[in-house]
Amino acid sequence: MSLHDPPRLPTGFSCAARCCGLKTGEPDLSLFYSDAPAEAAALFTRNRFPGAPIIVGRERLGPGRLQAIVANSKISNVATGPEGLEDARQMARLAARELGIPEELVLMSSTGLIGRRLPMDKIENGLEGMSSELEGDPRPGARGIMTTDTEPKALSLEVEGATLTVIGKGSGMIAPNLATMLVFIFTDAAFPADSLRVLLSGAAAQSFQCLSVDSDTSTSDTVVLLANGRAGEVQEAAFRLALNNVCLRMAEWLARDGEGATKLVRVRVVGAATDTEGATVARSIVDSPLIKTMAYGADPNVGRILMAVGKCVDCQIQPGSLSARLQGVPVITHGRLNVFEEAQVRGLLQKDPVEIDIDLGVGRGQGLGLGCDLTEGYVTENAAYSSS
Amino acid sequence: MSLHDPPRLPTGFSCAARCCGLKTGEPDLSLFYSDAPAEAAALFTRNRFPGAPIIVGRERLGPGRLQAIVANSKISNVATGPEGLEDARQMARLAARELGIPEELVLMSSTGLIGRRLPMDKIENGLEGMSSELEGDPRPGARGIMTTDTEPKALSLEVEGATLTVIGKGSGMIAPNLATMLVFIFTDAAFPADSLRVLLSGAAAQSFQCLSVDSDTSTSDTVVLLANGRAGEVQEAAFRLALNNVCLRMAEWLARDGEGATKLVRVRVVGAATDTEGATVARSIVDSPLIKTMAYGADPNVGRILMAVGKCVDCQIQPGSLSARLQGVPVITHGRLNVFEEAQVRGLLQKDPVEIDIDLGVGRGQGLGLGCDLTEGYVTENAAYSSS
Repeated sequence: MSLHDPPRLPTGFSCAARCCGLKTGEPDLSLFYSDAPAEAAALFTRNRFPGAPIIVGRERLGPGRLQAIVANSKISNVATGPEGLEDARQMARLAARELGIPEELVLMSSTGLIGRRLPMDKIENGLEGMSSELEGDPRPGARGIMTTDTEPKALSLEVEGATLTVIGKGSGMIAPNLATMLVFIFTDAAFPADSLRVLLSGAAAQSFQCLSVDSDTSTSDTVVLLANGRAGEVQEAAFRLALNNVCLRMAEWLARDGEGATKLVRVRVVGAATDTEGATVARSIVDSPLIKTMAYGADPNVGRILMAVGKCVDCQIQPGSLSARLQGVPVITHGRLNVFEEAQVRGLLQKDPVEIDIDLGVGRGQGLGLGCDLTEGYVTENAAYSSS
Repeated sequence: MSLHDPPRLPTGFSCAARCCGLKTGEPDLSLFYSDAPAEAAALFTRNRFPGAPIIVGRERLGPGRLQAIVANSKISNVATGPEGLEDARQMARLAARELGIPEELVLMSSTGLIGRRLPMDKIENGLEGMSSELEGDPRPGARGIMTTDTEPKALSLEVEGATLTVIGKGSGMIAPNLATMLVFIFTDAAFPADSLRVLLSGAAAQSFQCLSVDSDTSTSDTVVLLANGRAGEVQEAAFRLALNNVCLRMAEWLARDGEGATKLVRVRVVGAATDTEGATVARSIVDSPLIKTMAYGADPNVGRILMAVGKCVDCQIQPGSLSARLQGVPVITHGRLNVFEEAQVRGLLQKDPVEIDIDLGVGRGQGLGLGCDLTEGYVTENAAYSSS
């Protein structure tokens, strides 16, 4: 399954980005458009303080149809009360006017600082005339939604004559709960909204739901999939495979570009009592600050793996049954550390990605965890985030 | 309730520490002794990979009597199989021989690297003649169990003619689950083991159980309370008050001296549906890397408080009911951020401790969270822990 290089949007989709003045000299406003209404499905954050765009977005997704997404970075429009809800609606209204489509078909999305109102005059000025700049390259749109990401993220591939494109952003406050960060997925394949919901949940369960940069769950997380049908029907099994693949690649890209991160950490758990327990253990390992700093410093302290598994006190774990491999090399057998030269373990940990495979040896459950290392860069970045 | 300065051990208790060669030139072996058998209670880690000293220690605590504790730092004797269990027993046997007491009355405790065997020859040589060095100052014993702590930690106070002394260590891999880090508590007050268990659980619930330096749960956590009765019976209510007080102070000390930490972060939650939910929310806030870096950098990004509360997706939270104060100043009212000058919020966050008070506004449950900021120092320290 080979990716387009450079990535492109599917037939009928286009995007544009501008700097409307939320950031200084960097794109901060993106518009994504389909020339025909598309079937749509979405997953939103489970955080109990969802942003205004999430609250309005949940309503919008009800009928399962969208034609555009307007998204800004820098300010997330969270904890802004009824005024914030009205700002979110107004943002959709302005985009709809610019595009000449019904406002109910516009999803709005905001990411950035919590608790500040959107400067609606800047959004309005920014959107004016933007429809004339729409193009088929997804990267400008991906750039406009970046916060602390170090690069715009867009992937696309061919599937049975249709195109599938995923755009993502997110590098901190990432620990999914039914949805994560901002991920916009576009295809010209034809699927009804009901099918899209099932396909999207399935793909997210094996990708974005396994991702944790810092165990913090954003108030703005959104994953949305639009299918405008311009390429006609395609085989669902092939599409599912392609969607799962491209979502996993995007999740890994988001992990590797986590705030301050230098490495992807990928944890696979087998032999758990249930899939839920497998996921819990995998998540415990990728979230552990001591595992994350070990990965960063290539510190040969693999006993920390036992600690991170063992702190899942509600999972079925038999100390004598656990085995673990690091980069494929057995480092723990039946709950005991194997003996290695420090330099050898250090060499394994220096590679990117750091692959940790756990066999709990108690059942048939499995889990995947995608994370990154913890560096001084994460601390420095987040100790001065609102001021940067 | 005023503390002794300098701290001292209760009547009949003494301790000594030596460098037996696990560390280079720093004390790494501590011995604590009561001149009469003491009633005893303990709490051990709930981590599913408990160290050998924990496994043997659970057996030892059955009858509720102890007379000595032998503890080493640098190597934790975890994941070392049957040989590790035998090493733990042998360590107690050697201490018992040195002290001339039954080995069943000796608790052993080890903290440090996971997965390495204890060099028993060094432990044996180290213990030889150590009984002649026992003294009433608790600080040498506290120093011998330090790992990444920056100072030895001992507190003592008078309660109704008896003395209560608590010795603690722990600065990383701290997130309690029924017990935490190493805390040894000694008193010459007379209480039966059954009472001690209740008193200790109650005190830990309001102190060590609320403490999280990095959300990682150690495989060696132990809190143990010995009462040798040399000062006779004291009023239980007064003793409980003193014990709760001294445990809370020690927990705050451990938090403030967390790895790399520059500040204590204290979170009080009221208005939760239940005490369990209050504790969950408090813990979520003190564990959030984004709260911890905000505290470190005094970054005026208090919206992160909403995020950290909101990610407790299984708790009863009504966005419009939540209010929060920072250093006593209302920063969030009914789920919305109040407007402040950035410099003002920055000034509040610069103070130590950072006090965050949350009213969830849904019930009568309460919770306490004790943590610290997250700094580059934590990362640097743990990226090279095993080599330092």
